[in-house]
Amino acid sequence: MQQEDKVNSIVLVGGTHGNELTGIHLVNHWQKQKKQQAYSDLNIEYFIANPEAIAANKRYLETDLNRCFKLQDLNDITLTSFEQKLAKKINQQLGPKGQSRVDFIIDLHTSTANMQTNIVLVKVDEFHLKLAAYLKTRLNGVVVTSESAIMPDHHFLSSISPKTLLIEIGPIAQGTLDPQIMQKTELALSATLDFTLKWNNNDVPASTEHLKVLQYFSRLYFPTDERGEITATVHPDLIAQDYQVIEQGTPIFQTFDGEDILYDGDAAVISFVNEAAYYDQKIAMCLSRPVFYDLQSAQKVAPLCQ
Amino acid sequence: MQQEDKVNSIVLVGGTHGNELTGIHLVNHWQKQKKQQAYSDLNIEYFIANPEAIAANKRYLETDLNRCFKLQDLNDITLTSFEQKLAKKINQQLGPKGQSRVDFIIDLHTSTANMQTNIVLVKVDEFHLKLAAYLKTRLNGVVVTSESAIMPDHHFLSSISPKTLLIEIGPIAQGTLDPQIMQKTELALSATLDFTLKWNNNDVPASTEHLKVLQYFSRLYFPTDERGEITATVHPDLIAQDYQVIEQGTPIFQTFDGEDILYDGDAAVISFVNEAAYYDQKIAMCLSRPVFYDLQSAQKVAPLCQ
Repeated sequence: MQQEDKVNSIVLVGGTHGNELTGIHLVNHWQKQKKQQAYSDLNIEYFIANPEAIAANKRYLETDLNRCFKLQDLNDITLTSFEQKLAKKINQQLGPKGQSRVDFIIDLHTSTANMQTNIVLVKVDEFHLKLAAYLKTRLNGVVVTSESAIMPDHHFLSSISPKTLLIEIGPIAQGTLDPQIMQKTELALSATLDFTLKWNNNDVPASTEHLKVLQYFSRLYFPTDERGEITATVHPDLIAQDYQVIEQGTPIFQTFDGEDILYDGDAAVISFVNEAAYYDQKIAMCLSRPVFYDLQSAQKVAPLCQ
Repeated sequence: MQQEDKVNSIVLVGGTHGNELTGIHLVNHWQKQKKQQAYSDLNIEYFIANPEAIAANKRYLETDLNRCFKLQDLNDITLTSFEQKLAKKINQQLGPKGQSRVDFIIDLHTSTANMQTNIVLVKVDEFHLKLAAYLKTRLNGVVVTSESAIMPDHHFLSSISPKTLLIEIGPIAQGTLDPQIMQKTELALSATLDFTLKWNNNDVPASTEHLKVLQYFSRLYFPTDERGEITATVHPDLIAQDYQVIEQGTPIFQTFDGEDILYDGDAAVISFVNEAAYYDQKIAMCLSRPVFYDLQSAQKVAPLCQ
């Protein structure tokens, strides 16, 4: 680690999606209880991203805020939806992206899918790989995912800062709180801050292990009729079965008349299965493949044979 | 049964709440597949109640539509929210309440709570008690509930017609479809129609059993701070534990700092535990007590000793 790579300022974000209550209440609770005092070596700020969407109990009002932070979109003055304008404002407050005043943004999310403790990497480099590896040692049910390979200019809010993490815990229905989901989120947050202190103190334990990251490459859409109406559900065998492998011939949908629809594609790991937030785009699940990284070099490696 | 008590016309309703997709897709599917032909002795119509709320993927736009059908509210021209006006229009189409052109409205709902197959009685009389008892013999996980005792002028859409049923299946996140939830809903619907044919043919089997109906009497609200913000979740021991009994001293909430809050009230059966749709009113769960009915007389009876 270079000295200039130390994390001095952190922003803890909730409410990027207005109906994901866990992060909102956790950020407000930490602020109220002054929990940042337990991390006095870090300068922690709190930030509620989309109060208007929270008031409406909706993910977003016009555009998904967490898809508005590509550098080219932030610089595009013709993008003027409520959230596109909000993104430009947030980029001024926390960024600007590329020269951010903030070192590390941690954004708290939930999923209606059975995503467990999903650590979403916006960047794949030494800091983020070692952070993810550390979280796997500290927490149960951690799965590390990323779409960075297909999105060099990332669209997440947390991509404003050079260090960036999205923590996404599920399953939980939108607009609700669950004590176990809150606890898992808080544990992931605390462990992330613990790691950051270790990073700053050059105290991250060396490891020769390889980290598995699920890299997204595609999505499956619901079958629809001529009017665009959904005609099938996710197959009962796959409901809540996030991170299972599907391959050629796996039943993936069941029509409303009970007929199976089979998968016709390359083997893939499924996630965000039946995610409520993705019905607006009729996405039934996302597809990824495991990629293994060496923690020291941050380079991809061939998976070790079993 | 009197001859004039036969059910000639049925309306199958979905989309009274715009983000409860199961009923919407089931009604559309039945209409498309002409499934009413399997019940040719019944005149079945289909009705999607709130297309605007469906398009917005929200329970309602301004007012909960399924709370707008009290006779006094339908007759109150000063009630002019989007759904209050829609209720008046629906009352013209299917009613008017008290002199309804439709004999029987079956309204399909879902819950984010673990409500199983919740048969909600809007009226407690011979037809409805025998229907509920019949559904218990046909389906697994049936629980019969009612708030008719505290609401003689009922506020549900289905209260327009003299015979009325609300079928509510859970748990399922708002804005999603689940094949098991769809199947349970369709089974409950088919069994309701089968019972209706039996009723019309004077073919309902006699029974000396007593039917247990959970009668609502109160609600528990989330604890809040001085700004009205929720400060605790439902207690982990009660999450998804709908239909459990709580009594004096049962832990019911857990503060964000992990402290238990104990119940201080009369013994009650809980349901709609952590229901997403009730967060707008900060209702954490509903409270009911079992009441037993004689099926022939439709009178309350003292519960039999074990």
